[in-house]
Formats: sequence, C-alpha cells, structure tokens
Amino acid sequence: MKDKHRGPVVEPGGTIGILGGGQLGRMLALAAARLGLRAHIYCEEADEIPAADIAASVTTAPYDREEPLRAFADAVDVITLEFENVPFETVQFLSELKPTRPGARGLRVAQDRLQEKTFLNGIGIPTTQFSPVGNGGELVTALQRIGVPSILKTRRLGYDGKGQIALSSLTEREMAWETVKRAPSILEAHVPFERELSVIVARGSSGEVVTYDIAENVHDNHVLRRTAVPARLDPAQDRAAHEMAAQIVSALDYIGVMGVELFEMSDGGLLVNEIAPRVHNSGHWTLDGCAVSQFEQHIRAIAGWPLGSTDRHSDAIMENILGDEVAHYARLLDHAGAAVHLYGKREIRPGRKMGHFTQLLPLGQLAGG
Amino acid sequence: MKDKHRGPVVEPGGTIGILGGGQLGRMLALAAARLGLRAHIYCEEADEIPAADIAASVTTAPYDREEPLRAFADAVDVITLEFENVPFETVQFLSELKPTRPGARGLRVAQDRLQEKTFLNGIGIPTTQFSPVGNGGELVTALQRIGVPSILKTRRLGYDGKGQIALSSLTEREMAWETVKRAPSILEAHVPFERELSVIVARGSSGEVVTYDIAENVHDNHVLRRTAVPARLDPAQDRAAHEMAAQIVSALDYIGVMGVELFEMSDGGLLVNEIAPRVHNSGHWTLDGCAVSQFEQHIRAIAGWPLGSTDRHSDAIMENILGDEVAHYARLLDHAGAAVHLYGKREIRPGRKMGHFTQLLPLGQLAGG
Repeated sequence: MKDKHRGPVVEPGGTIGILGGGQLGRMLALAAARLGLRAHIYCEEADEIPAADIAASVTTAPYDREEPLRAFADAVDVITLEFENVPFETVQFLSELKPTRPGARGLRVAQDRLQEKTFLNGIGIPTTQFSPVGNGGELVTALQRIGVPSILKTRRLGYDGKGQIALSSLTEREMAWETVKRAPSILEAHVPFERELSVIVARGSSGEVVTYDIAENVHDNHVLRRTAVPARLDPAQDRAAHEMAAQIVSALDYIGVMGVELFEMSDGGLLVNEIAPRVHNSGHWTLDGCAVSQFEQHIRAIAGWPLGSTDRHSDAIMENILGDEVAHYARLLDHAGAAVHLYGKREIRPGRKMGHFTQLLPLGQLAGG
Repeated sequence: MKDKHRGPVVEPGGTIGILGGGQLGRMLALAAARLGLRAHIYCEEADEIPAADIAASVTTAPYDREEPLRAFADAVDVITLEFENVPFETVQFLSELKPTRPGARGLRVAQDRLQEKTFLNGIGIPTTQFSPVGNGGELVTALQRIGVPSILKTRRLGYDGKGQIALSSLTEREMAWETVKRAPSILEAHVPFERELSVIVARGSSGEVVTYDIAENVHDNHVLRRTAVPARLDPAQDRAAHEMAAQIVSALDYIGVMGVELFEMSDGGLLVNEIAPRVHNSGHWTLDGCAVSQFEQHIRAIAGWPLGSTDRHSDAIMENILGDEVAHYARLLDHAGAAVHLYGKREIRPGRKMGHFTQLLPLGQLAGG
C-alpha cells in the first residue's frame, strides 16, 4: 500500500477529496480554490459542516460505507484528511482506489499513542517515558515504573485533552482507570516542560521536506490559545527542532503537512509530545505570515506539485477565537494589522474554535522579546 | 435610492450576494469565506462560472428577470457586483429589496464614459480632453475640437480595449464610426502618458476611506500584464493620487472598493483615465502583500464592518497568467517567494486571465528601482 505516485496526480481544475468537514477542511478547501482546484468534502452527518460552504461538492455518509466511499474516490483525483481520527480502515480502503495522502502508515502511527511513541523512540527521537496499560494489572506495573505525577491517556481518539487523566498519587489509580473507561491506554511520565513548541513540516511526493519557522504555543485548558513565531530559541535548539520534524516525515514516507508538538525542558532539551498527521492549529499564522500557507503547502504536497517557500515576511502572533469571544468580531476587525479568520460556525459552545486572528509584526520584532 | 444603512448589515454566518461569476467574484467569495460569510452568486448562464465552485449557492438567470432576482435578494443579506456591466436597471431593482453596494450612483457614472469624465471634471479632477459623439456630425465637431491622435470609445460596455478605436488622421473618421457601430461614444484626446498608475480605494458605510499604496501598471494589448507596488512617485504625486481617489468615492457616496486608473504625464501631473466600481486587477497583489486584501476590504465595506489596515508588509510584483501561460503552472509554483493564484478555468483562450502570481520582496526593495 506504499504510495507509488511521484509527480502530479492532479491538474489545475482537478478535485481534491477531503475526509472531514471542520475548519481545517474549510481552510484546505480555500487553499485548493486559490490554486484553481475543486474540493469535495466527505464527512459524517453533522449539524454544521464548516467546510461545506466552500466545497464544490459534499458527501455526508458514514466512514464505513463502501458505496459512498467508492463514489467519492471516483469523483476526486487525490484524497486527504483534515483530522486524524478518520478510521484507519477507511483510509486503507480509499488508498486502494485513489492516491490517499498522507498514507495509511503515518495515520496508523499518529492514531495510537503507543505506536507513536514507540516509533519516535525507534528513530532516536526523545519522548517522555511511557508504559503501555492494557488492563488494571498493567497500570500497577506502569505506575511502579513511571511513578507520579503522570498522565494516563487512551491510546486512541484523544484530542484537546480528551481521554486523559492526570495522576498525582498512587491512590488515584482505580479512579483514573475508570476515567479512561478501561480502554487500552498508556501511562506517560509528567513532563515539567518550560515551553511548548511546534514545527509545521511538509514532505512532497518526491521526498523533499520543508519546515516553517518554529512556533511557541500557549495552551489554556488543553486548547491552543496563542502561537507566536518565531519562537525564541538558541541555534542548536532551532536546528534540532527542524531536524526532528524532517526525520519523522521521512521515516514515515509521509506526504503532506504534519504538525509536530514539542516540549522544551529546563535544560533546553526537546522532547516530541505528539504528532498530528494533518495541518495544525499552530500553523494558522502561515496564512498571513508567508506567501505559501501550511494549507496550500499540504495541497501542493498531496497534488504532487512543487512545494513552496516557507519564508516568513513578518513576525506573527496567532490567537484562537474561542466560544463567545466571536461576539467581539467587530473589535478584532478594527485592530490594525490583524488578519481575522472566522469559520462560519453558527452554534457557539464554550471553548469551541470559532475563528482565529493573526497579528503581523515587522520581521525581527519578536526575536528579542 | 440613497443607501441609508450605517453599521453592519450582515453578521458572521450571513450571506453576501454577488452579481457576476468571474474570477473577481471567485476571489470575493474566498474573502467572504475567510470572514465566515457565505457567498451566493447570481450570473447569466455560461460555460464556466469560476466563482461557482467556491460559492455556497449559485443562481444562473438573466439579469432582467424579476422573479429570480427577487429570490436572490431574499436569500442574501447584502448585494454587490464583480463587474461594472451589470445592467443599471438590475442594480436599481435589487437596491429596493436589499442593501446593494456600491450603489446605483457609482455604477451609473462608471458605466458611461461621458458621465464619468463629466463627473470627474465636475469635482475638479483632471482627465484627458473629450467630446461627446452621438452621431456622425458630432464626430466631425469633436475631431475639430480634439484633433488627432485621438480615440473614439463607446460610452458603455467597454473593457480591456473593447469598443474603442484609435484615430491617427481625420480620414479615418468614417471607418472609426463604423467600428464603434455608430453607438453613443466619446472622442478622447490621445494621452502621451509616461506611466500607468492605479489606486485601490475603499469607502466604508460610515464614510471612512482607506487607500492602498499606489501601483504602477504595465498593459500589453490593452490587458494588464504586470503591477508593481510601490510605484516610484515623488511625495506630491503620491499624495495627489491618494487624494483624488478618496475624493471620487466620497463624492459618489460610494460603499466598497474602487479601482482608479491614472496616467502620469511627462510633467509629472496625473490624469484619471477611468474608474472601475469594483475590485480591480491591479489590486490583486494585496492578497499577498497586506493583512487585509482588496477583496476582504470590499466585503468589510459592503457588510458595514470596520475597514482594515491597508499597510503593506512587503513590496510586490503581480503578473497575470494569460492564456496558455497557465501550462507552466508548475514552474511558477517552484518560484521561491511567489504566491500563485489560479482561477480554475478549464477553457484556455488567447489572452484569457487564467490566474496571477505575486512575487513578494522585502519592504523597500522596489522603492529605489
């Protein structure tokens, strides 16, 4: 199931198939449109499908129904995804019908925290200490090995802090195991990190790799609040971050954009926290800070087109617009130098990602900060 | 029929109605999407409707049919246009049903070269000398007044050099009159200009006016070939260009973006050549050179939202991709620092605008050129 296509698999005017209909799909569809390509969204029935208004076509159907999947594959030139929890079997099925990027391998690794960390350590990339937990007895063993504070996380289907529980004492073991619903999990050592960083990396179909400048992120309640670029790093850290990201996508024979989340430790060392096999919230600043955004870069990569420059023309601070903060849209629009992006979502829920805005600053302004 | 709405006429999630389905409508729809708005295109039946793939809804119907126009007005929150040759009566009809911007007045003036130049001179803005030509006799009188070289242009429905004929001797009078099909016309004195410049200006619903930096344009066979920003101007010229553009939109109580085309004379003086009551090809660089593009600026203006900053973060050279040049898209994509835009048009015709690309340069790099 290795992707054998090298070179263009889509011509201008062709169609990109996107699994998932959220704001990442919406911004991918917009990037495709800018390049003269059509977008066809495939997603499950939902109250709101932010990407649907932009897409030339939309299929709403379950991810496990062969007939609509086949019709979708027939209608598009290449297939990609905007969220990592598309069932692996769906991607595997589609990849037999049309070039599907990133391929099944990257997705399989990214969908499972145990495989992910095992893979990373296997290519020499440091992560936090971890131990698999398949049952209550393994949790005891894992706690003996890892100790507390630590975090029990389900291996699959976690995002934005869902499916995880912190343990600060051994007595919380039973409660934690119930919290993750006794699902296959891993226990991770708590990381006393200084800062959260991320690398947006893209790999093209002929193996070329580009990385954007490293971003520094602030999370609030497990949801990304703010990203600043460039991150304040010493040259060795900066080089290490770029190299780790490049190593990961190459080792996976990955095609497309990946978000690599890093922790900086107090001694300046870097760990990989997790990888996202898709465009990434911490790369939204590239829409306004670069000639070629992460979304366009992803479309170029999966289309088999040349990757673009990742040069920044500005420093940038991106901030998410969460929940009812969207009511202040007019004030944000009035903010000089801010590029405002709204996702067209009508239902406002606490913490829901409604949009983001990016403040552009002259190059070098953040570097000394 | 004065537009009485001040303040927002659309909320995020609302719908912008756009008359016309070409690439300008496409880029307006993309800008609307970025702000969380839906686009509804209304245009005549055509082989290709570049804006249709992006729009949430499309109506294809004649511009003079009340029923679909009414349904269109019902379905949207505000109406705008992407080309100036939408029948005036259509815009007038729609403006009784929904806020329609720019209003009928700006459109009426811009649709008719005689009204346009008369209006401009009336507010003290210089144009080339001109004389109305309603019949063969008036052409004789006009030629006596204006002389040769001069250009006979139809008053209405001209663009990209269509509906016009240059006269280099009086003997060409009959031929010229036949060329414009004896349509109401004006005779314009030939302008021995040094350079072509343009101003992209936006006026919001509460009367605020912003202008982008002046662009310097090169036409080839009456079609825009290349735009460079900033234009090399002395401070007095620069100020005059901005002021003329601001004066025009204010005098017309105009809401939205307008392109103002200027000629620079050998003595450094500026004439207005024509005004386009819409986003303008010479403003495409703003998509990549500014936090807020001309397209977003137009959407903000007609939505009654605050206008954005027109600051440039880069110098820019925009070049149109015409006809079969689009075959070289991969080479353009490979060009470092270039932002490539393709319009999704499938039929390639000589000189057809298939896309454009913008080369970004560090601020100040073009200024000394």
